[in-house]
Amino acid sequence: MNKQQLIQQIQQKKSFLCVGLDTDINKIPQHLLEMDDPVFEFNKEIIDKTAAFAVAYKPNTAFYEVYAAKGWQSLEKTVQYIKTNYPDIFIIADAKRGDIGNTSANYAKAFFNTLNADALTVAPYMGKDSVEPFLGFEDKWVILLALTSNKGSQDFQYLNVGERMLHQQVLQTATTWAGSDKMMFVVGATHPEELGEIRKMLPDYFFLVPGVGAQGGDLQTVAKYGLNKECGLLVNSSRGIIYASNGPDFAERAAEEAQKLQRQMAAVL
Amino acid sequence: MNKQQLIQQIQQKKSFLCVGLDTDINKIPQHLLEMDDPVFEFNKEIIDKTAAFAVAYKPNTAFYEVYAAKGWQSLEKTVQYIKTNYPDIFIIADAKRGDIGNTSANYAKAFFNTLNADALTVAPYMGKDSVEPFLGFEDKWVILLALTSNKGSQDFQYLNVGERMLHQQVLQTATTWAGSDKMMFVVGATHPEELGEIRKMLPDYFFLVPGVGAQGGDLQTVAKYGLNKECGLLVNSSRGIIYASNGPDFAERAAEEAQKLQRQMAAVL
Repeated sequence: MNKQQLIQQIQQKKSFLCVGLDTDINKIPQHLLEMDDPVFEFNKEIIDKTAAFAVAYKPNTAFYEVYAAKGWQSLEKTVQYIKTNYPDIFIIADAKRGDIGNTSANYAKAFFNTLNADALTVAPYMGKDSVEPFLGFEDKWVILLALTSNKGSQDFQYLNVGERMLHQQVLQTATTWAGSDKMMFVVGATHPEELGEIRKMLPDYFFLVPGVGAQGGDLQTVAKYGLNKECGLLVNSSRGIIYASNGPDFAERAAEEAQKLQRQMAAVL
Repeated sequence: MNKQQLIQQIQQKKSFLCVGLDTDINKIPQHLLEMDDPVFEFNKEIIDKTAAFAVAYKPNTAFYEVYAAKGWQSLEKTVQYIKTNYPDIFIIADAKRGDIGNTSANYAKAFFNTLNADALTVAPYMGKDSVEPFLGFEDKWVILLALTSNKGSQDFQYLNVGERMLHQQVLQTATTWAGSDKMMFVVGATHPEELGEIRKMLPDYFFLVPGVGAQGGDLQTVAKYGLNKECGLLVNSSRGIIYASNGPDFAERAAEEAQKLQRQMAAVL
């Protein structure tokens, strides 16, 4: 998916919501556990009920790898289901990969060809040649970790490196690797002021913003600091939507939570 | 596996060789492609012929994920094969994972419980709570990226952060998270002088050293700068061993290359 198509979808749906498919078998409704692939069945119902309110889905690979090959099957089926039934929706594989060039090239094939995701989250620590192999795929995106939403973001990402902090240096260096048509950045909702600074630095790039909801970030504040003229934001919510209920009404309740966020988004757009 | 068991194995085999199982279907012998699981068949033969010379195997997950669920099956079978037939050998899942705490906990289960690897490589950028969930497993190890072997290591890992460079800060901070009985560090063979500095900083920790062979690092130099009184090194070679030949003699040739390195290691121990 290219940038223009993503922006069109945001405008049509009046939403910049990304739903995180962090599907944990210990948290899904009991009645699904009797099925052959409970993780996929859960995702399917969540997707069907929330697709009207969301522009992106973001399965985090950790929740699938925990079941090894069987989990990867659920992940493949989930991506395929979205591609088949909701072809306009942007799919982010939240995998935080990154390795030496030769190896990253295999991750790129894994996520962009085999899995057919539109975007992959990538860790910056190993530098340019660890990221470049992901940039050679048409209409596929790298979403580079810059300032993450977790407490541990304090450990290294705020270190002063010369005139700026490490996460700012990562942003500045990475913008020399790819433009805003190929690369986005992860900026956590738990750092609203830094988000404002980063938006000033990078007026044109999209930011994937996790941390709204369960982690304490607030949508209004994120919108205030992060929006640009084309929107420029994908705000993710995982647990707050997909685990709104663990009863038979889980998908309806997820839809309600997604719609609440979508309405707030429509208001600020 | 605990530290004492690893050291015993090194002493018995007079080797600190780690063989990287970066198995690429485009590089393996033609005759294996007719088999049901060529990647596993290749690994099995490589393992049987090199196990006498190696103390560790290191499958890199990128080479398996490129085949999605089928690749994960090859990976599971490979780890199980080593555990069953060579239970003393240390298995490193080279996955370079790391995510917020809740998510890292799932990666930890994926690699330490489901896959049953002894160690996992982890990326440091997201800080303490992204690494901690991997530290709560008995006799399982975190191998944290510090100074990687690739060219891109220049981009961020050498940045000055106050009195030291970023990779030194990562090392210093991470040693407050775990001792040398639970944590190792990746230090690339392509940076021998820095390896010497790091050894002075951290006399007791094991280092996983990639980059010997195809990437240009040299074993003698690595040993000179990196050995400690308990050895303290696992030196990895992947392509130089497993692709020594792509004919029917591939496993024998791999064994010859592994033995060459083992003999050099015996001489420096």
